[in-house]
Amino acid sequence: MAAETHHVGRRVKVADLRDWCAAVLRSAGSCEGHARTTADVLATTDSWGVFTHGTKLLAGYVRRLRCGGIRSDVQPAVAAEGPAWATVDGRSALGQVTGVAAMQVAIAKARAAGVGYVGVRNSNHFGAAGYYTWLAARAGLVGIAMCNDTPSVAAPGSRSPVTGTNPIAYAIPAGERDPVLLDIAISTVAGGKVYAARQSGRPIPSDWLIDRSGRPTSDATLYPENASLAPMTAHKGYGLALLVESLSGLATGAAVTWQVGSWMWGDPAVPTRHGAAFLAIDVAAMSPPGEFVRRVHSLIDEIHATPTAEGVDRVLVPGEPQWAMRRTSEVEGIPLPSDVVTPLDHLAQEVGLPIPWMAG
Amino acid sequence: MAAETHHVGRRVKVADLRDWCAAVLRSAGSCEGHARTTADVLATTDSWGVFTHGTKLLAGYVRRLRCGGIRSDVQPAVAAEGPAWATVDGRSALGQVTGVAAMQVAIAKARAAGVGYVGVRNSNHFGAAGYYTWLAARAGLVGIAMCNDTPSVAAPGSRSPVTGTNPIAYAIPAGERDPVLLDIAISTVAGGKVYAARQSGRPIPSDWLIDRSGRPTSDATLYPENASLAPMTAHKGYGLALLVESLSGLATGAAVTWQVGSWMWGDPAVPTRHGAAFLAIDVAAMSPPGEFVRRVHSLIDEIHATPTAEGVDRVLVPGEPQWAMRRTSEVEGIPLPSDVVTPLDHLAQEVGLPIPWMAG
Repeated sequence: MAAETHHVGRRVKVADLRDWCAAVLRSAGSCEGHARTTADVLATTDSWGVFTHGTKLLAGYVRRLRCGGIRSDVQPAVAAEGPAWATVDGRSALGQVTGVAAMQVAIAKARAAGVGYVGVRNSNHFGAAGYYTWLAARAGLVGIAMCNDTPSVAAPGSRSPVTGTNPIAYAIPAGERDPVLLDIAISTVAGGKVYAARQSGRPIPSDWLIDRSGRPTSDATLYPENASLAPMTAHKGYGLALLVESLSGLATGAAVTWQVGSWMWGDPAVPTRHGAAFLAIDVAAMSPPGEFVRRVHSLIDEIHATPTAEGVDRVLVPGEPQWAMRRTSEVEGIPLPSDVVTPLDHLAQEVGLPIPWMAG
Repeated sequence: MAAETHHVGRRVKVADLRDWCAAVLRSAGSCEGHARTTADVLATTDSWGVFTHGTKLLAGYVRRLRCGGIRSDVQPAVAAEGPAWATVDGRSALGQVTGVAAMQVAIAKARAAGVGYVGVRNSNHFGAAGYYTWLAARAGLVGIAMCNDTPSVAAPGSRSPVTGTNPIAYAIPAGERDPVLLDIAISTVAGGKVYAARQSGRPIPSDWLIDRSGRPTSDATLYPENASLAPMTAHKGYGLALLVESLSGLATGAAVTWQVGSWMWGDPAVPTRHGAAFLAIDVAAMSPPGEFVRRVHSLIDEIHATPTAEGVDRVLVPGEPQWAMRRTSEVEGIPLPSDVVTPLDHLAQEVGLPIPWMAG
């Protein structure tokens, strides 16, 4: 999840984009609650400048809602639980709906027991993992979220994909300041970056892709048919991918590796059976009142005071660019790039719901 | 934590090395229990072939025990707790003693509540994080361990270190098979690898070090005085370092970043006040009996069947090289490399306790 430079297509107010997404989802059969929840995840993600995981995904979700691979007639439910854990069955509802429900259970468990771990099965693509960790941070808790996905990333020594990009996100609450928020895939870079290089014809660094003979390649045109993403720092990213697989899939009964359906390329009538995992930790309750947040502020201030490399204004904590982008989005509207505007315009035409673009 | 090629100095039986370490620690004032626990962590780590974090550390611990920076007259104790969490005050005992005690509390909490999170303050350098996760896996639980350390790793855009190498380890129980076990620093490589390159005069890849102007460098001789380790995949390793700092330091009241004393270079009379964090998750209790382990086996088998790059026998799961090395060590003795043998021989002379090397 990284903000990138994009060609700005159109601007839209955050609330307007959210409301339009909700209307589109309702038109595809979603109930009011599912539509509102999912729309908020997608519009928030765009407001952070994380355009790869925002409303760009909407058309794919609508397709699956219509074909039955995502179900609009079900509610995620706790299938098993204990004092500090639960397993949630998403029943193939929208992944965002299940993700929000699961993190809310994790937060409730953490309030009672100090920590809450919630594993999820029968979920779907859930967008940006960071959104769910933010729910925990807004409640004053440390939040961690992760999910598995259909394989696209090689393992050290493999010729083909072994794991998904299996994102890991966390948020650290910081009182009245923005939470520290990281959301990363375990590959060196996300597939979107490779596509962008492929389109522009640029060669890529040799640590982004592994070709079908198992060797690093700088040829972006091989991806995705004839190359896998490289795991970050080889065994490190691969190892973290298997931790995500364990907590999201092995512990929950979700699909694992190749069993996970591709939400984009797979049969839209067949559920993807993604797994996910959510952790909430009530750190504030473990220290004297206010102490945890004071320590967070002190660490942030120390990092901001670090001597910088030439051309660098200051060393940032994770999430700062996204929170700055969000504030700009709230004032000036979200500057959606053209690769998001185009599919949204198509979808708007198809469903007959015009997008309330800002003038100019 | 990676097995590397070393010049073999001498061989020693695992149990003999452990007993000798315990005797050395007793001679420096440790009680029987602290000596046994710490010796087992160090000898086990060597038996995995992870020689950077095994008995090579012993002389430094002995020095701190003698000077008072590590205390032999205290027991780590639970300072605060709830149903699924605890904060353990290490009281500056040996980090291994505090680490084992803390993971045991996490395991007990997890057995009762499903999950246990134990944060630690006033700890010390605790060696290989993976050891503690193995305790959880041996009990059938997923274990996660991490700790902070005095800064040696740059942040994106910094000229100087911002975080420690802040290791993260996990173990996934696999029934009668070896657990899946990963133990990594959040830097691209550990400092030991840079020292080795410096000694051999080899240039290093440009993603290992950041020089004092904040730029990548291939000059290993700059480290550590005039270069920082690079965080793996830039913002990703840096971001994970801050998660470790949050759970090990901010949540526990341990020292944070520059407050953490250097166990190697700092005043050996002054406690280092390291923080650490341990998580145990009772995954077996969350699925039908035997189901979790069956899923782990199925994933391992699938990975082993993955098509490999030329020259690669098979794709391994994390920990496999270490478990293979351990089996060899148990039969043939641990082949300690010369950079471990030399300081151990010095220490043996100093304390008057000869090392029971194997003949030949």
